[in-house]
Amino acid sequence: MKMIKASICAPKGFKAAGINVDVKGNGTKKRDVGVLYCEVPAKVAGVFTQNKMAAPSIQICREVVARGRAQALVINSGCANACTGMRGMQDAREVVDITAKCLNIAPEAVLNSSTGVIGRWLPMDKMKKGIYDSVAELDKQDGYGFAESIMTTDTFLKECACEIELGAKKVTVAGIAKGAGMIYPNMATMLTYITTDANVCAVLLQRMVKDIANKSFNNIVVDGDTSTNDSMIVLASCLADNDKIDSEEHKDYAALYASILFVSQELSKLIVRDGEGATKFLEINVVGAVDTEQAKLAAMAIAKSPLVKTAFFGKDANWGRIICAAGYSGADINVEAVSLYIEDVCIMKNGLGTDYDKVKFQEILEGRDIAIKLDLAIGKAEVTVWTCDFSYDYVKINAEYTT
Amino acid sequence: MKMIKASICAPKGFKAAGINVDVKGNGTKKRDVGVLYCEVPAKVAGVFTQNKMAAPSIQICREVVARGRAQALVINSGCANACTGMRGMQDAREVVDITAKCLNIAPEAVLNSSTGVIGRWLPMDKMKKGIYDSVAELDKQDGYGFAESIMTTDTFLKECACEIELGAKKVTVAGIAKGAGMIYPNMATMLTYITTDANVCAVLLQRMVKDIANKSFNNIVVDGDTSTNDSMIVLASCLADNDKIDSEEHKDYAALYASILFVSQELSKLIVRDGEGATKFLEINVVGAVDTEQAKLAAMAIAKSPLVKTAFFGKDANWGRIICAAGYSGADINVEAVSLYIEDVCIMKNGLGTDYDKVKFQEILEGRDIAIKLDLAIGKAEVTVWTCDFSYDYVKINAEYTT
Repeated sequence: MKMIKASICAPKGFKAAGINVDVKGNGTKKRDVGVLYCEVPAKVAGVFTQNKMAAPSIQICREVVARGRAQALVINSGCANACTGMRGMQDAREVVDITAKCLNIAPEAVLNSSTGVIGRWLPMDKMKKGIYDSVAELDKQDGYGFAESIMTTDTFLKECACEIELGAKKVTVAGIAKGAGMIYPNMATMLTYITTDANVCAVLLQRMVKDIANKSFNNIVVDGDTSTNDSMIVLASCLADNDKIDSEEHKDYAALYASILFVSQELSKLIVRDGEGATKFLEINVVGAVDTEQAKLAAMAIAKSPLVKTAFFGKDANWGRIICAAGYSGADINVEAVSLYIEDVCIMKNGLGTDYDKVKFQEILEGRDIAIKLDLAIGKAEVTVWTCDFSYDYVKINAEYTT
Repeated sequence: MKMIKASICAPKGFKAAGINVDVKGNGTKKRDVGVLYCEVPAKVAGVFTQNKMAAPSIQICREVVARGRAQALVINSGCANACTGMRGMQDAREVVDITAKCLNIAPEAVLNSSTGVIGRWLPMDKMKKGIYDSVAELDKQDGYGFAESIMTTDTFLKECACEIELGAKKVTVAGIAKGAGMIYPNMATMLTYITTDANVCAVLLQRMVKDIANKSFNNIVVDGDTSTNDSMIVLASCLADNDKIDSEEHKDYAALYASILFVSQELSKLIVRDGEGATKFLEINVVGAVDTEQAKLAAMAIAKSPLVKTAFFGKDANWGRIICAAGYSGADINVEAVSLYIEDVCIMKNGLGTDYDKVKFQEILEGRDIAIKLDLAIGKAEVTVWTCDFSYDYVKINAEYTT
C-alpha cells in the first residue's frame, strides 16, 4: 500500500466540483455547495448517525445505500437541514431531483448530505444555483473544491488517498472528511466520503464499511455530541479492472480492507487534530479489558471527560482524573490491578501512584501528541480511541456559532 | 415548613468545627479539616458514588451506614485520598481512629470524607493537628467553619435549613453541600451532609435518602464527571422528641420527607449555581416521556452537552443543539411530536421550528436563570434536572487545578 497525495477524484470514474453561494447568508466566500459524480453507477455502502433527530438527507442516503448503487452525491454546508419537518424532507428531495436532472441520471442514484446550523430551512434558490454551477464545473476534477464545500468550523481540509495493487491492477482509494465539533460519532462520523475504483460486491462493501467505522470514525471524540447528520459513504466505481472481490475469502479482500481502513483512520485522526480549539492530540489505548465493549467504555469515558481534556490543555499533571473517568465508565475494573502510562512514564502501577519522574512528565505534557495507555489487567481486549483537549477556543467557537 | 437561616448545628445534639492546616500545601488560609459531632449516637443513612475507583473514605462510610448508627464525621479538602491503594485505606482508618479517640467514642461510629486532588496521600501530621484542633473547638458550634473545611473550587458556602412541626414538636433539618466541578452524581453528589433532630427509624431513613437523592443530587450536572468521592449523608439525632417515624404510613412521614427533599433540592441547585465558571443556571424539564428513565436520558443528554452549554454561555440562539442532544440520548422520540419551549417562547412545535419572537428570545438568553421545557408528547413521565453553562472560566479553573 502506497500513500499518495490525491483528491477524491483520483480513483477512476470520479469527478467533483464545489462552488460558493453563501448558504448561511453571512457573506462567506468559502465554497458551500458541491457535487461528486461517477461516470458509471457505482457500488455504494454507508453508515449513518444513530441520532433520532437524523436529518432528511440521512433518510435519503439510507434509501440509496439499501439499493447498493449510486452515481452522484450533492452536499452543502451552512445549513444542516435537520429538525425541519416535512418541508425539510421536501427540500432534500428537490435538491436530489435537481441534481439528477442536471446530470441526466435517476434521482434514486443521488445521495445527499447537509451540515451546518440545525433547525433552519435550506435556501432553495441558492441551492439550485450551487448545483447548476457545480455540475457545470465537474470536468475540472476539482476534488479540493468539493472537499471545501462541506467544511464548517474546520480549519483545514481533510484528505487521504492510497494505492494498492490487486492482481497487477492498480486500485486507488481516496477520501475526504469534515468535522471539528459535534463529534462523537455513533456508527459513522460527521461527514466522510471515500471513493475507490476497486471492483467489489456492494453487499460485501457494506459489511466492510460497518466494520471499518467501528475501528476509525466511531473511535473519535471532540465534544461528546453525536450529530444529526453523521455519514460515512464509500463509493466504488469498479473501473480498476481487478478481479471482482465478492467475499471475505477472496485473495484481494484483505488488501482492499486494509486500504479503506487506512484512509478511514487517517481521516479520523485529522478530524481530531482539527477538533474545535484543540491544542493537543490524545491517543487513548485501553488494554487488558474483559472485552472490546468494556475497553471502549473506559476509553470513551476518558476521551469525553471535560476534566481530563482541560487538564491536558493546562499541561496539568492531574492524572487522577483519567483514573476517575475509567472508574465511572461502567467498565469492569479491579482497582488494585490498574496501571497507567503517559507515553513511557508509568504513573500508576497496580492501583497505586508511582514516584514517577516529574520533570520528564512535564516535558511530555508540553508536547502536542500524547499517548495514554491504561492497563486494566483483567482480560485481553483492547481498543484505541482519539480525542483532543478542551481549550478556551472551544468555548469561543461554540458560544458564537450561529451568530 | 419554614425555611430558616441556620447552620448544620441547628438540629438538637449537633456540634461542628473546622480549622486550617493547609492540607494541599499551597499555603491556603481556608479551613480544610472539620469535625461534626452528635452528643448521642445518631441514626445515619447515606448514598455514595458508583465510581469503581471509590475512595477509602467511601468504603468506611458504607460500613458505618450499614450499621445505621454514627456519632461523628471527620472531613478534609485539598486531598481526595482516592487511587491511593492500601496506604490510602490505612490513612483513612487512622483518621477515623484519631477522631474516635479525641471524642472518646468507638471508631465504628465515625464517618469520613475527603475531597481534592486524586492520587495523593493524606498529609497525616497535618490531619492529626486538624482533628485535635477541630475537636477542641466543637463547643463553638461553628457550622460555618465546618462547611468551609470541605470547599475546594466552590466560590460560596452552600447551606440550607428548615423547621417543621411534627405533633407539636419542633423538628429541624439542616444541610451543607460542596461541589462545583466533577459534578455528575450517580447515587449522590460530591459531598453533602444533612442533620436533623427528627426521631426516625434508621432503615426508613435510608430508604428516604435513596429516593430523595434521585430527585435532587442525582439530577444535577456541571461537567458530566462522576467523582470518586461523592457522598450524601443524613444524620438524625432523634432528640426532637417527636413521635418516632417508623414507616411510610406514619402521619409525620410525608412532612419529614418533604423537609429533607426541600433541603436536598435547594443544596443541589446551589451546587449548580456555583458550577465552575458558570454564568447561567439552566432548569431542564422533560415532559411527555414514556417513563422516568427515558425522560432522564433526554434531560441529562441536554444537561451534559458541551455544545448546548457553550451556546447558552454565548447567549446564542442555537436551539437545534438541544434537540440534537435529545436525539442522541437514547430516549424514545417521535420526531414529529416534539415541542421545545425556552421560558414561555415556543421554539419548536410538533417537530418543526416556529416563527418565534427573536427579540424576546434574545432577552431571555440575556438572563441568568433560564427554564427549558422539552415535550416529547408520547407519554406521561417527566423529570427536572439542573445544569449550568460552559464558560472560559470552566476551562481556566480546570486547566490550572493541581498546580
